[in-house]
Amino acid sequence: MTISVSSAADFHVHLRQGPMSSLVTPHVREGGFSLAYVMPNLKPPITTTEQALAYKHDLEKIDPRVHYLMTLYLSPELTPDEIRKAKKAGIVGVKSYPRGVTTNSDGGIESYEVYYPVFEAMQEVDMVLNLHGEVPSDASANVHVLNAEPTFLPHLFALHAAFPRLRIVLEHATTRAAIEAVKSCASTVGCTITPHHLALTVDDWAGQALNFCKPVAKYPDDRQALRQVIKDGHPRFFLGSDSAPHPSHAKTTCATDHGCAAGIYTSPILLPLVTELLDSFGALDKVEGFVSRFGREFYKVDKLAPALRDGDLAVVLQQVPPERLQDNRVPERYVSADGQDVIPFWAGRGIRWEIVKQ
Amino acid sequence: MTISVSSAADFHVHLRQGPMSSLVTPHVREGGFSLAYVMPNLKPPITTTEQALAYKHDLEKIDPRVHYLMTLYLSPELTPDEIRKAKKAGIVGVKSYPRGVTTNSDGGIESYEVYYPVFEAMQEVDMVLNLHGEVPSDASANVHVLNAEPTFLPHLFALHAAFPRLRIVLEHATTRAAIEAVKSCASTVGCTITPHHLALTVDDWAGQALNFCKPVAKYPDDRQALRQVIKDGHPRFFLGSDSAPHPSHAKTTCATDHGCAAGIYTSPILLPLVTELLDSFGALDKVEGFVSRFGREFYKVDKLAPALRDGDLAVVLQQVPPERLQDNRVPERYVSADGQDVIPFWAGRGIRWEIVKQ
Repeated sequence: MTISVSSAADFHVHLRQGPMSSLVTPHVREGGFSLAYVMPNLKPPITTTEQALAYKHDLEKIDPRVHYLMTLYLSPELTPDEIRKAKKAGIVGVKSYPRGVTTNSDGGIESYEVYYPVFEAMQEVDMVLNLHGEVPSDASANVHVLNAEPTFLPHLFALHAAFPRLRIVLEHATTRAAIEAVKSCASTVGCTITPHHLALTVDDWAGQALNFCKPVAKYPDDRQALRQVIKDGHPRFFLGSDSAPHPSHAKTTCATDHGCAAGIYTSPILLPLVTELLDSFGALDKVEGFVSRFGREFYKVDKLAPALRDGDLAVVLQQVPPERLQDNRVPERYVSADGQDVIPFWAGRGIRWEIVKQ
Repeated sequence: MTISVSSAADFHVHLRQGPMSSLVTPHVREGGFSLAYVMPNLKPPITTTEQALAYKHDLEKIDPRVHYLMTLYLSPELTPDEIRKAKKAGIVGVKSYPRGVTTNSDGGIESYEVYYPVFEAMQEVDMVLNLHGEVPSDASANVHVLNAEPTFLPHLFALHAAFPRLRIVLEHATTRAAIEAVKSCASTVGCTITPHHLALTVDDWAGQALNFCKPVAKYPDDRQALRQVIKDGHPRFFLGSDSAPHPSHAKTTCATDHGCAAGIYTSPILLPLVTELLDSFGALDKVEGFVSRFGREFYKVDKLAPALRDGDLAVVLQQVPPERLQDNRVPERYVSADGQDVIPFWAGRGIRWEIVKQ
């Protein structure tokens, strides 16, 4: 059995800098994707048009086969003027990180109202606001990693009400509450879903640092809500892998007073992985909508980059027969030129779909 | 400032076998304790009176200064006759593990009713039933590590109703629901609380395998309930450390398809640790009740072991002044004769109380 997927687009990916970037950027295409929506949480974060264009140039040098859509990091330096400048330069979105909730988010935001002039400008020029939808933990208010996303949702509603024409994407949704929240919004609010959140629950990262990511995978009932909205073919829910490479030592060796690095790496296996997952819950017919059409329509990619309309990548995937499953295993690790090794999701596990043509 | 604690008793501790046992058993006394209620989940588990007595003999050879109260592992081999034999031999309790929920629990139970004749005999001879109060995860029923304990509580109520005179201890409670459940029971139901569950929440083991234990630490509100019941001086809630040594590689290095070993090691620092924790939430005046009197009364220790009534260990603890805190650090690791290293809780951290006399 084979399926064909046109112009797969990953609407949330971390492509890093330096030797790590050289390692992971080509994995986008290797994983079956021709478009990458690139996160700006570098060190230092991408806060200006110039930085974003320079970063895009770096990525194109590493692998020119992929179309990179660039983003800025929401911070006090960002002005309405910079937004208009960024838009003209082809930058697509602005990513907001609450302070301290994930990798390189120390410069994240604490309150949204101070950014309303920026959002006003984004709405005016039709840029997209990407929300990492978690509030920081606060033991005194019983806020922790498992309710950080539901606790964030009032911020989503407030932003959507204040800027009804601003396109907003709630990134990497993990809870039934988030799915319902996005569904209840108007057509300007979309939502990305990662493959690992379709696979994991809290039981899988309990004592297993390699499966630790932010937002953390939640309860089985939440996972079911994520699966169902994809099965329903809801056009405002689409793939954003949040593929996030970390050297394995940062994932598994950590001091007792702070946690290991959050992040799961899926880029090199992304399309086979997503296909296996959707197949596992009876949504094989939704693969193309989820990984390509819905996101591209929400982001108006054809308008942004007319060149992408024709002649773009069409990938054919084939089901791996059981007898060949053990030969089709995810690599145990990928190693950068400077010796950083990254352990991918499902390392060593046989994967049920493979790319046969791209 | 100093406080004195008489005859501290740890009503839930894992003392292991072989070289690991030789390492950790003397730490009971080093940690300020003179009584250890010893868990039976060895390989193979302790299921007979003979095994329990042989194990007690082994422990006494390693460190004769501590009084060991022994337990059996609830399994199909256990008969009412064996219960009566065990009672005569001085064995105090029977530990029940649901199948597969923690270390060496593969032989755990799946349903309690088959054990009713055993419980009847235990009630008759006044032995204690120790419950690991979690049900196994079941994604189809939305049962996971965070609600495994609340989901177990109906079993506690059913057992208590069926055997109202049977003394039952809900071990290592972690949730507000469990605290409320035990409070609502009659005087035959008690509850142990670990120091690490007074310190940690889910945020502390997210991505941090060293803080992973079963039951997992829950939400801040649950931790607050544990602290409050101790602050209230409730006599049916007492210390059981669940101190559980694992070699560090088993805690931090694990294959992607299963989690790391569950367990936190606190024995060598237990009394200073508990004192610091209770002090941190204003319960310094409850230390002796929590670590000695309440548990000894529930277990009727004076009746079990009259020798313990007089001349037992009295420990004096002294507050460490801030300028000496960095000199009073928890060791980074303990190493057994065969080279297994165990990383204790709070490794490398300055601890605010120290034992000055025992």
